[in-house]
Amino acid sequence: MIRVIAFDADDTLWHNETYYRDAEATFRRMLVAYHDEAWIQERLFATEMRNLGHFGYGIKSFVLSMIETAIELTEGRITGREIQAIVDLGREMLAHPVDLLPQVMDTLAALQGHYRLMVITKGDLLDQEAKLARSGLDAFFSAVEVVSEKDEAVYRAILARHAISPREFLMVGNSLRSDILPVVALGARAVHVPYATTWIHEHVEDVDNSRFAALEHLGLLSEWLAEQ
Amino acid sequence: MIRVIAFDADDTLWHNETYYRDAEATFRRMLVAYHDEAWIQERLFATEMRNLGHFGYGIKSFVLSMIETAIELTEGRITGREIQAIVDLGREMLAHPVDLLPQVMDTLAALQGHYRLMVITKGDLLDQEAKLARSGLDAFFSAVEVVSEKDEAVYRAILARHAISPREFLMVGNSLRSDILPVVALGARAVHVPYATTWIHEHVEDVDNSRFAALEHLGLLSEWLAEQ
Repeated sequence: MIRVIAFDADDTLWHNETYYRDAEATFRRMLVAYHDEAWIQERLFATEMRNLGHFGYGIKSFVLSMIETAIELTEGRITGREIQAIVDLGREMLAHPVDLLPQVMDTLAALQGHYRLMVITKGDLLDQEAKLARSGLDAFFSAVEVVSEKDEAVYRAILARHAISPREFLMVGNSLRSDILPVVALGARAVHVPYATTWIHEHVEDVDNSRFAALEHLGLLSEWLAEQ
Repeated sequence: MIRVIAFDADDTLWHNETYYRDAEATFRRMLVAYHDEAWIQERLFATEMRNLGHFGYGIKSFVLSMIETAIELTEGRITGREIQAIVDLGREMLAHPVDLLPQVMDTLAALQGHYRLMVITKGDLLDQEAKLARSGLDAFFSAVEVVSEKDEAVYRAILARHAISPREFLMVGNSLRSDILPVVALGARAVHVPYATTWIHEHVEDVDNSRFAALEHLGLLSEWLAEQ
């Protein structure tokens, strides 16, 4: 009996990965005189992975990784003006309007009152809070948890803190690695709603998909819930 | 009757501002060929204030502000290597060992079991979690709240979420602006334990100090509590 539904935020409630892809394309064009685009992209991803433990997720970390990659790939010849352009890319991403995914508003409105609704998201605290405020969705949620990683231990701690049993908990999100597998592992339910693109870091292979549901878009969630 | 004691973290439980001051000194030396140190410091603070709403508190924001200030003050002539040195300064700050302030461990050990202990801190989520883990203090606290700002509304929301009445709540911290005034404003108690240095942004003037206590160091807290 599902009583609590938690939603991932980025690429589940609103577009996000798209803006990272756009920023990466701009970044590659900045450095195209030095290297081919595939190599730039590969080095940027390597820098991001090296920095993840120090800097965490989010736009500020992404900006710092772009800056370091630019210095490395130009052997220090990148100019101050170009570095400023990279910082400005990050500032634009932070100020970007929040574009809700289709049917998010209707779905949340339909579920409201019937379920306790939460957000569980990783990323930068200030940025996630600001996006939630700009999204106009904040009134739907009784709790918002911004966490630095989404693994089984983190989900277990959140459920304990809110006195939620795994049997009454459903997580909805676009990332198999962060939203689905750790939730299924602790005996709760999960619904995967894929986004158009997935960051390589979130990619997983050989998933046992008998243990969770997959829906094409969030608008199908109410129907799925009625079938349970 | 105080039942719950929440502690600020940076400069209350462990040293923090000192490392920012050290990093700023290194930063000023990097740019001393371009400007005098007082002007560099003034421009850095102005950049930080301009960025606070976009980037928030914490080391990553500080690094981005140093980078922007360096570009501005050198009119773009700063080199890639120098920018890398600024990013490395931030990485060193993030990896710095946690140095507890005197008597913190003894005080928390004495209070444990008699009060519900919490941490309420602003700053970067990942960095604060990592510092708490490295500090060895995490077992003392039943809850850790990392918030993007510490104002009256944020404190009120935390108290509501944990079902704590203002009358049973005590906040202990080094910042009048963030730890003391908003807490006193909502009818709870506060103890100010000043740190050696205060970031200009946290500075307040003309404080009505009849409404909170001030202690020279955290070791005096148990005695103060016994007197209440």
